[in-house]
Formats: sequence, C-alpha cells, structure tokens
Amino acid sequence: MPQHSPHETPEGDPFGPDTLPYGVFTPRDAPEHPRIGVRLGASVLDVATAARDHGSAYADLLDQPVLNPLMAAGRPVWEAVRAEIRDRLDQGVLPGAYARSLDAVTLHLPFEVADYVDFYASEHHATNVGRIFRPDGEPLTPNWKHLPIGYHGRAGTVVVSGTDVVRPRGQRKAPSDPAPSFGPSQRLDIEAEVGFVVGTPSAVGTPVPQSAFRDHVFGVCLVNDWSARDIQAWEYVPLGPFLGKSFATSVSAWITPLEALDAARTAPPARTYPLLPYLDDAAAGSEPGGLDLRLEVRVNGEAVSRPPFSSMYWTAAQQLAHMTVNGASLRTGDLFASGTVSGPEPDQLGCLLELTRGKGPWLADGDEVTITAWAPGPGGSRVGLGEVTGRVRPAVA
Amino acid sequence: MPQHSPHETPEGDPFGPDTLPYGVFTPRDAPEHPRIGVRLGASVLDVATAARDHGSAYADLLDQPVLNPLMAAGRPVWEAVRAEIRDRLDQGVLPGAYARSLDAVTLHLPFEVADYVDFYASEHHATNVGRIFRPDGEPLTPNWKHLPIGYHGRAGTVVVSGTDVVRPRGQRKAPSDPAPSFGPSQRLDIEAEVGFVVGTPSAVGTPVPQSAFRDHVFGVCLVNDWSARDIQAWEYVPLGPFLGKSFATSVSAWITPLEALDAARTAPPARTYPLLPYLDDAAAGSEPGGLDLRLEVRVNGEAVSRPPFSSMYWTAAQQLAHMTVNGASLRTGDLFASGTVSGPEPDQLGCLLELTRGKGPWLADGDEVTITAWAPGPGGSRVGLGEVTGRVRPAVA
Repeated sequence: MPQHSPHETPEGDPFGPDTLPYGVFTPRDAPEHPRIGVRLGASVLDVATAARDHGSAYADLLDQPVLNPLMAAGRPVWEAVRAEIRDRLDQGVLPGAYARSLDAVTLHLPFEVADYVDFYASEHHATNVGRIFRPDGEPLTPNWKHLPIGYHGRAGTVVVSGTDVVRPRGQRKAPSDPAPSFGPSQRLDIEAEVGFVVGTPSAVGTPVPQSAFRDHVFGVCLVNDWSARDIQAWEYVPLGPFLGKSFATSVSAWITPLEALDAARTAPPARTYPLLPYLDDAAAGSEPGGLDLRLEVRVNGEAVSRPPFSSMYWTAAQQLAHMTVNGASLRTGDLFASGTVSGPEPDQLGCLLELTRGKGPWLADGDEVTITAWAPGPGGSRVGLGEVTGRVRPAVA
Repeated sequence: MPQHSPHETPEGDPFGPDTLPYGVFTPRDAPEHPRIGVRLGASVLDVATAARDHGSAYADLLDQPVLNPLMAAGRPVWEAVRAEIRDRLDQGVLPGAYARSLDAVTLHLPFEVADYVDFYASEHHATNVGRIFRPDGEPLTPNWKHLPIGYHGRAGTVVVSGTDVVRPRGQRKAPSDPAPSFGPSQRLDIEAEVGFVVGTPSAVGTPVPQSAFRDHVFGVCLVNDWSARDIQAWEYVPLGPFLGKSFATSVSAWITPLEALDAARTAPPARTYPLLPYLDDAAAGSEPGGLDLRLEVRVNGEAVSRPPFSSMYWTAAQQLAHMTVNGASLRTGDLFASGTVSGPEPDQLGCLLELTRGKGPWLADGDEVTITAWAPGPGGSRVGLGEVTGRVRPAVA
C-alpha cells in the first residue's frame, strides 16, 4: 500500500492528505479558465484537469468556476469525489504534473453565496458585547440560551481572502452627541468566525433536523465579519445590524470538507436550560455537535488572540435546525457563520471590541488582519482550515 | 396616428399602454419555455416571440426565463425596449397574434433575487408597532428620523404571487410564560409593502447617490412580507427579525417600470430634523422622491385597509443612498422593500398587528390575502401595479 505522498507534505503540515480542501484557482499565467483545485501542502492540485485526463465521471463537476455544482450533487458524490482524489494520490497520479505552487495561482471566491446568515453563538462573546452595548441591562437577552440568535447578512459583499476592505463611511452618534455625524468609521473591527456552507438544498416547508446536518452541509470556511462599531451602535435598534456589517465579509479561499473534521468532533458546553426537542442535542448516540477548531487572529503579523471554537454554546447542527424549523428552505451556496468565536480567557477573544473592552485602538488604514485555524486530525495529525486575510484601505474621499 | 389599442384596454383599465409591466410566463399548454411577457388589460403580450419574429435587437434579452439580463442592461436599454413595445402597439403588430389570456398562462417569479433588504419607512407603522412591542419606551427609537432603518431578509424564500404559504412553526414565549414553547405560529400576519428592484449593479466601495436612483432601479413590485408575530417578538432582540419573517415573502408577478410612475411622483412628508447631506432630498430642482401609490389589502375578498404609499417618511431613493453609503455594492436582482405601508387613519394600516392593535384575530388556515395598488398615470389614467396574493396552508404536522 503506497504512502500518502509524504514527500509533498512534510510531517506536521496541516494540508496533508487528510485535509484536502477545495478552492477555485487560475494560474497566474493563464487566468482565463477558473476551475476547482485541492490544496496539498504549499501546492494546488489541478483536480479538474486530472479528472478530465483520466476520464473521471466527476470531471464536469470539477471543471467549474465555482463549487456550487459539486456542492449541489450531495453527500454520496462528495464522498466519492474525495475518495477518488485520495486514490489518485495513493496511485501517484497526483500530484504528478498537476501540482502548481500556491505562489503561481490566483484563488477566487470558491462558491456563489446564496443567503448569508450570521449567528451569535459564543456565550462569552454575547456576554462581553452585551455588557459594552447595554451596560444597564442583563448582558444576555432572555432568549439567548433558548435559541441560536441569528440574522441575515449581505450575500453580495462576501469576498474572498486577500481582498482589500475599504473603510466604510456612515452615520454614528455617541449618546453624548447632540446629533448624528457622517464620516469614515472610527471604530473598525473584525469578528473571527467559522462558516458552514450548504450543499444539498431543502424544500420550502420542510425543516431540516440536526440529524440531517451531514446530508446538507458540504464544508467549513473561516470568516472575518468586518464590523464598524460606531455605525452598528447607532443603527442596530430595533431591527439589527445593517450597514455596520454589510460593506464586506471575508471568507477563506479553501472550503474544508466536513469529513476532514471528524476527529475534531467534541461535546459542546453543558446546557443551562433544557432545550426544545428540535434543538436538543443530548440524545444518546448522536454525534457530538461541537468542533475542536483552534483559531488564531493576527494583526499585522502579531498574534492577538487564540479563540477556541470548542467553547461555542450553539453548534452548527443546532443552527441549521433552527434556521429551517419555520419551513425556510436551503439553497446550494447558503453560508451560515457562527458569530464571533470568543473563549473565556482574555487572550481568546475574537474581536477588538472585546479585546480592548470597547475602548480601542481600532483598525487603522493599512492594517492587515489574518485569521487561521487548525483542528486535530486522525492519528495526531493536524487539519488546516486555511486562512482569511484582508487589508484595510482608506475610506473613499 | 393610430390609437393605443383601445379595443384591448377598456377606458379606465389600469393595464393600458401607459403601464406595460414585465413578467415571466409560460402558456398552460406549453410550459417548457418560460419567457418575458408584458401585461395589457387581461392579456399577456408575448413580447419575446414578437421580438424574435420582427428581428428586434432585444430578442435575446426578452426571450429569457427571468428579467435579470434585461435588468442588467441599464436604463438606456430599458427605455429603448419600452419604446419599441409601444411602437409595435401603435403599429398594430401588438397585440395581434401575440396576446394570450391571463387565464391561459402561468406566471413565474419574474426575477432571480440577489439580496433582499426590508426597510421600516412608515412613521405611522413604526410608531404603532413600537407602542405594541415596547409599551414602556418611546415608540420611535432615537435613530428612526435620522436614517432609514432596514435589515436583510431571506432572498431564497421570496415567492411569486399565488404561491401558498405554509404556516411556520417556531418558538414563542409571552412575557408571562415560564419557558418558551414550540408549535405553529398563532399570530400569523401580513405586511403590505412596495418593493424596488435593482437592475444596474454598482461597484464595491462606490456609494450610489439619490440622484442616480433612476440609473439603478428598474421597477416596482408589490410585496407581502408575511410575519409570525409570536416568533418575531421572542427572537428579535438584539439582532432583529429572523424566523418570524424568513419562511416566505411574496412578490407580485408584474414589475412596473419606473417610468410608468412618473405622474405619481409626489413630495414626501416634511422632515422633522435636518438630514445629513447624503439623505437630504430637499435640494432645489431634484425630482420628488415620494410616490402616490394607493394600496388595498383584501382578506378573503374583503377590503380591510387602503394604505397610502405617499405617506412614507423615507423614499426609495433615500433607501438606496443609505444602503450603499458604506460602500456596499448593488447586484442585478437586489430587492429592497419599503416596510409596511401605513397611513395616519385607522383604515390605512398595512398589517393586522396594527389593524387589531396587537390583539388579533390573526390569519387562519385557508385565509387568502391579496394586496393591489394603482397610481395616477398621465392624463388622468390609472397605472396598475398588479397584485400579490397568497393563501395560508396549515403548518406541517
């Protein structure tokens, strides 16, 4: 039995044969033909061309400018495609002539986003933010531990990692200001999140239970939900965040298949209240819904936080069940993000609002923010989740 | 000079040659080829086939299963296509063999929805709802008269008029309940709204001023923003409405071109506070931003309300300017709705929450809701905005 190309992925490389995330790339020297690639170490494997060359039944799904057709094909096809790619690695067909250096390709937004939903699933984050935004009230609203709170964001401004983010302008009004003023946000922030990408759609009127999570969710990405705190604070009552968020949301270029994270499954925190049946995840025998993902946030190269995704109160399967329990349908390309990942410790907070207790400093023009993550893989290996990075450009004049 | 086909549209018909809204249809006896049609009286004109038969340069834009390609083509093309259709009416080419009875066609969702934003632009509605949802506070939040409050809704559950709506299930908890319960919504409501459909996209980082409204907005539809008040009341603090709205939003099958509403332009209400420059619409010489649309809401055939769109505090041009002032881009197919249209009088309220002062009765299974509207047209004519209708089906077991 051949080894998994050890010469291509050094010991400990988080993009070994147990990871194999999907992206969309073009060679820098031939940008006219975007297609699906798979990451191995510091290379992109041109699995679209390999599939064509070797008569794969999946060539038409892989030779695409977005992942949506592959994602729409459903879990049996996802597993068959992944198995075929691993077989070709075992056989030595891959990487072969199909590897391109990451330095020699451009990575594109890997999927067409249908609806984008952002949750608010970290108890630590929601508590910290509640204390800052509503200092006179209880930090958690009464509903928080009974349902995963979420809202729809702007799908049209989801951009791929590496895209610059223009500082938004907008209205803000501090409580002490006599009237609102207008200008570039003075409190530009990040939110380190994990996103889940829907492959298999569902019909209107048909809730998707937690047990069907794997049938519908294709994979995982990293998300930076850029946030203008001054704009958000003035606008968000009573209908929620809008322009404080809608200028840009960055996602990683790599979508990690759900099955690459099987070894990272972990139990979520104990529940404070009994949950309604559609949200209850304590039933004997069900797969643990938490994921042990270790995030790291860097600003201009310096690590400022290491948020643990295992601390999230609400799991992605609960979010999916909640999002559809009213009969709302899923579409291929739906993205739902966790909300800011913050742990209990001061060096585990996923946004500057919390890291600076609402006082700043905030992001300056030219700052570059990078979020990375890894998860335990099989046999002590690491599974990398890629990175989401972006640089702040000055506001338009 | 021939008359505008008076035999096809009786005197006073709101779908005469000054209206000419666009939709997408299939003949009942030939459902395999959806294409663009234009309404005239009680007929659908097959303008796609007419354009093919007569060698129109616009045949490829009209022979489409959605309006998006035509909408993406921009205002000069929209005006040229409308002029060509009116010319063919004058010449007697239309209706000719191209008319099909409305009874003999199926009407489809006329455009692919990109992002869906719902505003909250009626002062009467926001005040009434504030009194019911937040009885201990000021009815209007401090930001309300400084910016048009809005939020993103679920684009994937926008459905065309005539689609049944399944009663949603979900969590609700009255303040007096010890814990939340789960089941079919007991407070199912409507919201009578007007929607604006974006044709011409805009670039990220480039705000769209009020003066560019006509360049970007293709047309107008009617919207029923179905709302489950019990689900909404329990979930909406702090991030806004989610499952209380996301199960279904109905839109009319007909999109009325903006230029058909030129005679309906009217000044919006006087502003309480000076507005920031990007929202200021009092500048001399600018086109009035309000629209004199007269809505009617019928439940099971009985008129229950006649909301006047002219009473809306925030105009669609202000909403567009606000939505993009942070640099958020527009895509072809973006839909932004006004929020519930309510006037100052008791018979001008656009939802049951207001009509019944929060007490119900609410919608029962089997109830059918229809919203229609018309506007003053040129020379005393009426311009019809079609209708949006839907029937409530029982919750899933």
